[in-house]
Amino acid sequence: MVKKRRQRSSKTKSKKKQEFYHQPRKMPGTIIIDENAESSSMYLIEYNLTEVIYQPIKTPEECSNFLDKTSISWIDVRGLGTEDILQKMGVVFDLHPLVLEDVINVVERPKIEEHEGQLVIIVRMVIPKKNDGFHSEQVSMILGENYLLTLQEEPEHDCFSPVRLRIRYNKGIIRKRGVDYLVYALLDAIIDGFFPVLEMYGERIEDLESEAIFNPSRETLQKIYRIRRELLQLRRSIWPQRNVINSLIRDSNELISDEVRIYLRDCYDHTVQVMDMVETYRELSSSLMDVYLSAVGNKMNEIMKVLTVVSSIFIPLTFIAGIYGMNFNTQKSPYNMPELNWYWGYPLCLTLMVIIAISLLVFFWKRGWLENSSTIKHD
Amino acid sequence: MVKKRRQRSSKTKSKKKQEFYHQPRKMPGTIIIDENAESSSMYLIEYNLTEVIYQPIKTPEECSNFLDKTSISWIDVRGLGTEDILQKMGVVFDLHPLVLEDVINVVERPKIEEHEGQLVIIVRMVIPKKNDGFHSEQVSMILGENYLLTLQEEPEHDCFSPVRLRIRYNKGIIRKRGVDYLVYALLDAIIDGFFPVLEMYGERIEDLESEAIFNPSRETLQKIYRIRRELLQLRRSIWPQRNVINSLIRDSNELISDEVRIYLRDCYDHTVQVMDMVETYRELSSSLMDVYLSAVGNKMNEIMKVLTVVSSIFIPLTFIAGIYGMNFNTQKSPYNMPELNWYWGYPLCLTLMVIIAISLLVFFWKRGWLENSSTIKHD
Amino acid sequence: MVKKRRQRSSKTKSKKKQEFYHQPRKMPGTIIIDENAESSSMYLIEYNLTEVIYQPIKTPEECSNFLDKTSISWIDVRGLGTEDILQKMGVVFDLHPLVLEDVINVVERPKIEEHEGQLVIIVRMVIPKKNDGFHSEQVSMILGENYLLTLQEEPEHDCFSPVRLRIRYNKGIIRKRGVDYLVYALLDAIIDGFFPVLEMYGERIEDLESEAIFNPSRETLQKIYRIRRELLQLRRSIWPQRNVINSLIRDSNELISDEVRIYLRDCYDHTVQVMDMVETYRELSSSLMDVYLSAVGNKMNEIMKVLTVVSSIFIPLTFIAGIYGMNFNTQKSPYNMPELNWYWGYPLCLTLMVIIAISLLVFFWKRGWLENSSTIKHD
Amino acid sequence: MVKKRRQRSSKTKSKKKQEFYHQPRKMPGTIIIDENAESSSMYLIEYNLTEVIYQPIKTPEECSNFLDKTSISWIDVRGLGTEDILQKMGVVFDLHPLVLEDVINVVERPKIEEHEGQLVIIVRMVIPKKNDGFHSEQVSMILGENYLLTLQEEPEHDCFSPVRLRIRYNKGIIRKRGVDYLVYALLDAIIDGFFPVLEMYGERIEDLESEAIFNPSRETLQKIYRIRRELLQLRRSIWPQRNVINSLIRDSNELISDEVRIYLRDCYDHTVQVMDMVETYRELSSSLMDVYLSAVGNKMNEIMKVLTVVSSIFIPLTFIAGIYGMNFNTQKSPYNMPELNWYWGYPLCLTLMVIIAISLLVFFWKRGWLENSSTIKHD
Amino acid sequence: MVKKRRQRSSKTKSKKKQEFYHQPRKMPGTIIIDENAESSSMYLIEYNLTEVIYQPIKTPEECSNFLDKTSISWIDVRGLGTEDILQKMGVVFDLHPLVLEDVINVVERPKIEEHEGQLVIIVRMVIPKKNDGFHSEQVSMILGENYLLTLQEEPEHDCFSPVRLRIRYNKGIIRKRGVDYLVYALLDAIIDGFFPVLEMYGERIEDLESEAIFNPSRETLQKIYRIRRELLQLRRSIWPQRNVINSLIRDSNELISDEVRIYLRDCYDHTVQVMDMVETYRELSSSLMDVYLSAVGNKMNEIMKVLTVVSSIFIPLTFIAGIYGMNFNTQKSPYNMPELNWYWGYPLCLTLMVIIAISLLVFFWKRGWLENSSTIKHD
Repeated sequence: MVKKRRQRSSKTKSKKKQEFYHQPRKMPGTIIIDENAESSSMYLIEYNLTEVIYQPIKTPEECSNFLDKTSISWIDVRGLGTEDILQKMGVVFDLHPLVLEDVINVVERPKIEEHEGQLVIIVRMVIPKKNDGFHSEQVSMILGENYLLTLQEEPEHDCFSPVRLRIRYNKGIIRKRGVDYLVYALLDAIIDGFFPVLEMYGERIEDLESEAIFNPSRETLQKIYRIRRELLQLRRSIWPQRNVINSLIRDSNELISDEVRIYLRDCYDHTVQVMDMVETYRELSSSLMDVYLSAVGNKMNEIMKVLTVVSSIFIPLTFIAGIYGMNFNTQKSPYNMPELNWYWGYPLCLTLMVIIAISLLVFFWKRGWLENSSTIKHD
Repeated sequence: MVKKRRQRSSKTKSKKKQEFYHQPRKMPGTIIIDENAESSSMYLIEYNLTEVIYQPIKTPEECSNFLDKTSISWIDVRGLGTEDILQKMGVVFDLHPLVLEDVINVVERPKIEEHEGQLVIIVRMVIPKKNDGFHSEQVSMILGENYLLTLQEEPEHDCFSPVRLRIRYNKGIIRKRGVDYLVYALLDAIIDGFFPVLEMYGERIEDLESEAIFNPSRETLQKIYRIRRELLQLRRSIWPQRNVINSLIRDSNELISDEVRIYLRDCYDHTVQVMDMVETYRELSSSLMDVYLSAVGNKMNEIMKVLTVVSSIFIPLTFIAGIYGMNFNTQKSPYNMPELNWYWGYPLCLTLMVIIAISLLVFFWKRGWLENSSTIKHD
Repeated sequence: MVKKRRQRSSKTKSKKKQEFYHQPRKMPGTIIIDENAESSSMYLIEYNLTEVIYQPIKTPEECSNFLDKTSISWIDVRGLGTEDILQKMGVVFDLHPLVLEDVINVVERPKIEEHEGQLVIIVRMVIPKKNDGFHSEQVSMILGENYLLTLQEEPEHDCFSPVRLRIRYNKGIIRKRGVDYLVYALLDAIIDGFFPVLEMYGERIEDLESEAIFNPSRETLQKIYRIRRELLQLRRSIWPQRNVINSLIRDSNELISDEVRIYLRDCYDHTVQVMDMVETYRELSSSLMDVYLSAVGNKMNEIMKVLTVVSSIFIPLTFIAGIYGMNFNTQKSPYNMPELNWYWGYPLCLTLMVIIAISLLVFFWKRGWLENSSTIKHD
Repeated sequence: MVKKRRQRSSKTKSKKKQEFYHQPRKMPGTIIIDENAESSSMYLIEYNLTEVIYQPIKTPEECSNFLDKTSISWIDVRGLGTEDILQKMGVVFDLHPLVLEDVINVVERPKIEEHEGQLVIIVRMVIPKKNDGFHSEQVSMILGENYLLTLQEEPEHDCFSPVRLRIRYNKGIIRKRGVDYLVYALLDAIIDGFFPVLEMYGERIEDLESEAIFNPSRETLQKIYRIRRELLQLRRSIWPQRNVINSLIRDSNELISDEVRIYLRDCYDHTVQVMDMVETYRELSSSLMDVYLSAVGNKMNEIMKVLTVVSSIFIPLTFIAGIYGMNFNTQKSPYNMPELNWYWGYPLCLTLMVIIAISLLVFFWKRGWLENSSTIKHD
Repeated sequence: MVKKRRQRSSKTKSKKKQEFYHQPRKMPGTIIIDENAESSSMYLIEYNLTEVIYQPIKTPEECSNFLDKTSISWIDVRGLGTEDILQKMGVVFDLHPLVLEDVINVVERPKIEEHEGQLVIIVRMVIPKKNDGFHSEQVSMILGENYLLTLQEEPEHDCFSPVRLRIRYNKGIIRKRGVDYLVYALLDAIIDGFFPVLEMYGERIEDLESEAIFNPSRETLQKIYRIRRELLQLRRSIWPQRNVINSLIRDSNELISDEVRIYLRDCYDHTVQVMDMVETYRELSSSLMDVYLSAVGNKMNEIMKVLTVVSSIFIPLTFIAGIYGMNFNTQKSPYNMPELNWYWGYPLCLTLMVIIAISLLVFFWKRGWLENSSTIKHD
């Protein structure tokens, strides 16, 4: 019932699109292991008020020893590439085939589902990329009575480490509370991970603002479009996340205690704040496109002004020079270009030209076409 | 009660519009067979946990033998062109006249209706066209207690074959479940069919992005507009589909078991994912129009820069050449163009021109008007 | 209590605006007969399963003879210009003054109201105009227990004739059902009347697409704006219509039987389909404006390219010609334009010009500015 | 507890902004009399089925004589400038301090509130200005068991006179109904007052359409922006008004009888109609901005065509003239400009020029750049 | 449990972004004191109908003496920089750790929460900046049975002083009511603080309107974008504020009396009014961008007109001058430029030029290209 998804590494383009969605499998309940996926490794954290055990696990069956205990067991699976482990996990934790499929065949859209004593929470975490943009990754949580199973796509991106440290060093109240508080702490860490990404976008939009106004180029246009596209993607990650957390707060479920619901309300506030920011940035990036368009028009105006000033001054002057370059025979008639033979002919002609040039300069100066300071200042 | 719809093959234009809507008939309950419709053929799949019968059917009456059995009967009608067969189908399956009409006179808008022990589900499936765009087709399902009647517009487009294979080779759990699971499997196959179409649009939009930024032409404009139009059409197909599946999940109906509702929730998630993608692509295509407009302005700037640089440099120089082309009589007066008789007159004049040209080049270079690298790189 | 509305035939402008709204009267319950309104004529159709009587009526009082009968009476008033008839109608059918006012002083917005045993349905029908655009007209229906009173604004526009024919020739089930089915049949005929109008707009938008892309002119701009305005008007007609039909389906009312509600659901589907189309066309026409703007920019680019190519080639050449048109005295100095006296001077000069011209042509050709094929093809 | 609001007549700008909002006072319950407000005058209309008394009142205390009677008392206060009168009114009618404040310190936003046996209705009426735009004014109604107190901002704008006439001359049913019908009649008169304003905007938008398409100027731009701003303001007046009337219809309140609710439904329909119109005009004015932008681009195209045609024809010709203006010495070499000495040199040269000019004209004519008829026709 | 947030004073950019959001802390319940925060100072106002005590407090523990009393205690903490004081405050007032965190780590989004007998209200107040824009600051209120604890970010911005004065001088009814009325008075003062900011934006938009139409520059573009950004931010402050006040009115809570709810309704009206204004200004600023774009196009038209008029007049004239500057040998042939030897040659040539120039001027004048009055008037 397991097929290998064909590798598409040759098509570099499709890489980018994968960030947008993952095509669901053909048959419901089928698990398709992505050949590019990292091999799975498992870690167990077993803790109560007094003790913490932190150890890697080899086989999923080991977990079953811990599930019965009264202490809290957090099994963290990183990498979704080892089919055998994942299948056994499904057996050990008694997962519905559709749940196992959603968890492994990364489904993109955050959601929450209840399955016979288990709460399945699928969310998205984001990590800013070094250059720009962000990396988005699915995180699945299966919450049981005293255990939590989490599955992350890629081992190297991990926003759970602050929570792990708080457990290990007993910081805060995390070890005094149940497994539902652990879920809250992880969700909170995930939402907190959106803020650096947002901050990056805030900075990029601010940089683009002056670039668009004072120095619009094709690259600016491309950047604005890219930001719009990425923000659309970010928005698609965060909107359903809000519903997930809202469900956790509102829906009656024994696995979540009332006390933790108060904490989740705080987490919900942060999610709404992220959404607000994304919407604000989307509107700003949309305005930036208008700004860019206007600035391109402005730049054209600057160019045209130069052309018009230069042309309008020299074309009439050239015409006058052309007049006195004509070869009418001055000897045939006194009316044929007598100016050529005047004593002051040439100086008068030059004077006329200077007067015309100055008049036109004054005309253009009055219109403000000679003040290009703003351009020079910023270019 | 059956009229032949007049063929409009002469008007090639109307072909395209038909994708948008089908004008309803004049009299309620009238069946209008489209003359272009393919002739109908029927196929029966009768299956239970142990056996599968797969056979074509000649006459609708044959079906009635199968409807009583406890095994599941799936009658698949392909092609809506044979009036006689369709009418008899209506009798055999006891269909309400309005249902028969909706099924045959393809009504475009997905919907779900309950009619005395039958659940009528009308949805749209899409198939990507070879060149571009997509083909949209109505699929009707009439779900009874242990039978399912499906009607498809055109035989050659068929997204049911994976389901058929799963039944034949007993893959997955399909033969262990009832007819409601079959409905789910078919709906799921239809929704899955949207993803290749979406992928196509994702690729087209990405291609158009660089085309719009670096090489905007009239064809680009046309392509952007076409994408917008097609996405509007896609959206009109998928929005009501979501409501259909949501109704299946929420509305109490004996024909759909609770277990299948869990599966339908999964299908609903995919539908929402499709909608999300369509909306995202619509926003992106809308941004593309702005990008295009900005890029056209940019291109004009490039053109104007060339004109301005060339004109602004040569027009003043030509003026100077014009000055010394004047024919003022140097013999009449020492003030009349004495330069012409200077020993270094001509070299000085050329030097002046070179200085002016260099000054202007420096002026334009400082403004960044001489750097056209970006254009050359991408054109 | 009846005033004549002052005729405004002198102001041709106001004609167009009247399509948008009708200013309500000053005093509630006042009937204002439009002087331009056609004089009223009345027609009665009395039918049951076996018989049909079709006859014009002279005076409203005649109607009362038919209202008591068990057969179904449909009184159709065409033209709202004869005050006397309308007033008497109000008395015979016992209409609330506000209803009579709404019916006669055409109120634009479709609505449904219940008044003591009567259901008042006010809807809008549209008829495509010969040239372009559409004609919109109010249709009022007053539904009683076994009668239906309909009032139409203008006799010549009539979309009820197919229903009339179905009654006369006993086509379909119309004569087997009650007066509520007649209401459905008429509503259905009215909604069906929107489709030819929509088809017209579909064609116009398609025509405008290529006009906007390949041959944008001021007339194109005007057409796009006109389409937008007309679609806004169409939308204002169809939105409340949907609510009217929805009310008929949902609100409990003895006058509408459950069976007819099934039929009305079908009619509702068509209304939603019309709304979908109008919204789609509105979005497309909005895109067209962007397309137009982009195409205008494109056209400017074409013009500027020609100017730039011609200017950039000939201005430098003219400068060279100007150089050798200078009159520096070659006899005063060997440095004064010795080229003029060279043996190969003129041919060298021409060769230089040709080289410059070719270089520039190559430069422009590389930029793609010489390929104007797309313009020529479509202009 | 009463402060004089400082007059800001020196700042003419703020006058315009006051139409947008009125800053609320600093301390709740404070009455701030605007120094510009007209001094208050009071009028009483006391009527029942048989009698009408119409008289001005000097002091608010006079009113108390009428409040006990069974006949209906309508006290109309015009002008909100006399603090003393307003304060006493508050005492006589037992108004809540916040109500008195809202009524006097014009709060802009229509609303409805219930206060111990009184229904406080605050709405906005609009009056078209002579030049353009409209004047907006707050009207407050306090409805008691058998009295109605109305307060209007400025005496000269009065849309209540038709109602007053109907009472005096006993037109319609107004004197047969209670005070709630009077409220309806006044609300209806206020809503009716929106229609002339809408008609004005309809006409202005229509005028602007052809101005924007055929003769776009800066004034057009300003007019479009002004219309947008005024429509935004109109919309802010009418949206909450709808809620006010809807509350009157839906909320159970003893002061409004069921019969009057039927009339109010009619009034509600008109309000919705006004809203529809405002939205339609807003969309049209928004389209107009796009139209304007496109038309500006079109105009530029016209200008550029002229420049390009003239330049492209004469620049090459001037170059040729420049060639033969060169001074290469024909005596030094047979290759130096032999054309100058040809017998047919000059005529051949002119012929060449004419051929070039004609070729270019044909080229431009084929592109359609010589047809400026559309411009000339409309300019 | 308290960490110092690292100062980012080196990055001046981040200052601006902080106005947009504050990144939540890493661990729930952590208090992070901003190093830039002002040190905290505390003030107590203890009042009842007869007495007022107004005194600064040194240590939070002093407060506890006042909390038991029946009179109303308002403790106002200004500046959130002294960790010790804030922690002790949390102990004295028995605050939930999350509440203390929200209050100190300024969370941006207004909200309301109930915690065991306490009502926590977090809102935003705005103060106009001297130059432009506004300063936004979080205000937290913790309402107990007979005490109110308020915390403000910065001491120098204080919009509570009018309320303080009303308590001190016993103006209005504030001392006659309970602590809930105090909450209302403070909320009302905060909402009132939005109006001067709105007024500022109204004025700025009005100024920008004529700037955009008549004198568009890059600075105008920047200003429009800035206004859009600031209005987005303002909107994000006011939207959740409305929900907060609405919750206060609707949710049953013993701490808020019914009488104060009436006052809060008034406050709610003002909030809605602020929202209306913000939306209106947002739409206007969005229109301004279109206006700007159109105006840039207009300006280009003006420039192009000048260029076209000058070029189109002088280029043909220069061509004629060029013709007669050619050196065809008149002695070789009678056809070689005989005009040069005509008696009236030169005068005729000049006359021809004048005629051409006048014709072109008339042509341009008819097109209206010579009327630049509108530009000159406003520049």
